[in-house]
Amino acid sequence: MHLSKLFTKTSKNLPADETALNAQLLIKAGYVHKEMAGVYSFLPLGLKVLENIKQIVREEMDAIGGQELIMSSLQPKETWQKTNRWDDKTVDIWFKSKLKNGTEVGFGWSHEEPIVEMMKNHVSSYKDLPSYVYQFQTKLRNELRSKSGIMRGREFVMKDMYSASLDQKDHDKFYQDCIEAYHRVFDRLGIGGETFLTFASGGAFTEFSHEFQTICDAGEDTIYLSRSKKIAVNKEVLNDDVLKKLGLKRDELEEVKSAEVGNIFDFNVIKSKEMGFKYTDEAGKIQFVHLGSYGIGISRLMGVLVEKFADDKGIVWPEAVAPAKVYLISVGEDNKITDQANQIYKELKDSGVEVLFDDRSVGPGQKFADAELIGIPLRVVVSEKSLEAGGLEYKKRTSNDTEIVSVKELLDRVAN
Amino acid sequence: MHLSKLFTKTSKNLPADETALNAQLLIKAGYVHKEMAGVYSFLPLGLKVLENIKQIVREEMDAIGGQELIMSSLQPKETWQKTNRWDDKTVDIWFKSKLKNGTEVGFGWSHEEPIVEMMKNHVSSYKDLPSYVYQFQTKLRNELRSKSGIMRGREFVMKDMYSASLDQKDHDKFYQDCIEAYHRVFDRLGIGGETFLTFASGGAFTEFSHEFQTICDAGEDTIYLSRSKKIAVNKEVLNDDVLKKLGLKRDELEEVKSAEVGNIFDFNVIKSKEMGFKYTDEAGKIQFVHLGSYGIGISRLMGVLVEKFADDKGIVWPEAVAPAKVYLISVGEDNKITDQANQIYKELKDSGVEVLFDDRSVGPGQKFADAELIGIPLRVVVSEKSLEAGGLEYKKRTSNDTEIVSVKELLDRVAN
Repeated sequence: MHLSKLFTKTSKNLPADETALNAQLLIKAGYVHKEMAGVYSFLPLGLKVLENIKQIVREEMDAIGGQELIMSSLQPKETWQKTNRWDDKTVDIWFKSKLKNGTEVGFGWSHEEPIVEMMKNHVSSYKDLPSYVYQFQTKLRNELRSKSGIMRGREFVMKDMYSASLDQKDHDKFYQDCIEAYHRVFDRLGIGGETFLTFASGGAFTEFSHEFQTICDAGEDTIYLSRSKKIAVNKEVLNDDVLKKLGLKRDELEEVKSAEVGNIFDFNVIKSKEMGFKYTDEAGKIQFVHLGSYGIGISRLMGVLVEKFADDKGIVWPEAVAPAKVYLISVGEDNKITDQANQIYKELKDSGVEVLFDDRSVGPGQKFADAELIGIPLRVVVSEKSLEAGGLEYKKRTSNDTEIVSVKELLDRVAN
Repeated sequence: MHLSKLFTKTSKNLPADETALNAQLLIKAGYVHKEMAGVYSFLPLGLKVLENIKQIVREEMDAIGGQELIMSSLQPKETWQKTNRWDDKTVDIWFKSKLKNGTEVGFGWSHEEPIVEMMKNHVSSYKDLPSYVYQFQTKLRNELRSKSGIMRGREFVMKDMYSASLDQKDHDKFYQDCIEAYHRVFDRLGIGGETFLTFASGGAFTEFSHEFQTICDAGEDTIYLSRSKKIAVNKEVLNDDVLKKLGLKRDELEEVKSAEVGNIFDFNVIKSKEMGFKYTDEAGKIQFVHLGSYGIGISRLMGVLVEKFADDKGIVWPEAVAPAKVYLISVGEDNKITDQANQIYKELKDSGVEVLFDDRSVGPGQKFADAELIGIPLRVVVSEKSLEAGGLEYKKRTSNDTEIVSVKELLDRVAN
């Protein structure tokens, strides 16, 4: 993509009320636009990052047997009354409205109940189980406060997966498969080493649920972490009984701020009983379906990646999610420079490499500054100086070192 | 995909209130789930069709310079008050709700105003124009009635594109580019010959807007059509003056029912003036940006394709949007049949051909009926009979003729 064609601009201006680093950088670099507190639109570069994160998650969910679908945002009251989660006293983050005839409707803040309601039409026999479905949904949550940028939105993108299993054993197997898939997701996003399986409250369903918490100063959670054992305990459940149960000693734990990037729940058969989700087993007996739920915060992850990797010059994207692999800069208007830059752009594109080509008629200072702010993994400069030195200036976003490489060498290094 | 693994089932049961043919067939075949009147979830096969339609539209929008983004559903009141479109008396299809602090918010039924508000941050000079942005958005509209299945949803997917141009001349050029891109979209979807550029009301902005209307008995519009001149007039604007202006005679026009699958509007500078969307021209003078808007109903198109091509046995998808190209049936449990079917499945997949493999342990009658209902373009049967005859039974969904072909011949015919 040519930056001269991209309609977004980098900017030094910020909305007055924007205090979160992730949103500040994303707005300055032109990735997102703030509509109101906790509500952001994703501009072309931002949408690319979001889609790259989704695609990694999609591949890992498909690999463990997930089937993608998309549920509606509009929700009928009746579905949620079955589990007593329509009432604002039970769930205090509903956005609700009314149809013309006065019927109340809600906007999906979660999709557990509608997923169960829908699956009742398709699953009735043990032959239909297990079944795993997931979606990338825009959730709407009426949060009291929303000050963490895209890390806690009133509108945000979530991957939510649901498992329907025969029994506890069947459920436990998939639950473990999902833990491993989640680890692969976070590894691919470059935060695997900093993301920990964390024991958290299981709510009404089980003693514990599991969260995936990424160490992050901007996170809203506090966890107690054993790096050597690679597990953590959420502050909300930390007590002596829990420590004993998990075989942990308080003095081996490190207190860190963290962001919850994923969570997995065992609903057992509680929700199925409330909603009448049954199947006939091999012996012809009626059983309740064993349910689980598995979330990943897609837009939150984007914020976490910004918070974790940014430096004082701007965003630093992991290559797996960056909107392009190469930020190509031409310095000077001389024909031989422009021709060389155009040629490199073409060869990279032909090799399947995504390039942001800064072909704008602005000074080199702004191009260099924007390259850092936008955070593309590699910067390649074509200038009189680089041509004289025999090629292109090559620099990683994460390094201050530059080197001169030939076009062939560049292609060898970056081509897919 | 193996049908034995797909969690959705075909069914004869329908929600009592479902009267639209498109939704009836899509529910029976397992493509969609009805949440409430006008609100449908898209199950795995349905999501595939929706994504295939989106991809065709995306390619054509990118080809004319469109840049994809995604705006938020939640909308602040202030943005819409600027054009007097917040008030329920002016726009009667808002879904609205309130933040915890009492602030009113709306849910996007359109995104013209928020797009302009956002673009004001990025476009300020003639050098920034023209600029074309688009999105695939889930729109929420509080429709009084919603009885046309997925052809008129309270929640539906729309492609909306917006052009920001220097002046009328610049605008007119893109407007024409977009007309041609829309024709290519409808051609690729297989309804080009039945979709007509239609003169309709231009509202407050221009004398006419243009709609793309597809001849369809289930459509909610009536148009007057000149097949020879390849244009039509929406009933809402038909009068002697209009006919004269367009050089049409009433008796050359055919009255048909139709569905509006696309529309394009020239906003001139009216909305820019209301919202203060300006740029500095080459001479340093402040000008208002010339705006246009270009919609395509993505989920409606899916309904239109069902309505137009279905027969008494079920859905008939155009190949370009079908969730698979081949519906593969194995008849009988004999090893040589199963092996052959598995082999064909593998070879087709390796050649990049999407296959729905009906490997379920159900009778051939149900497999044949479901093949018709689900509407995949080609049906391939492996049975004792076919193997004896030297190959596979090959049948197009649109034909009753079957023929025996070899595996090699099948691959030659369908491989990409």
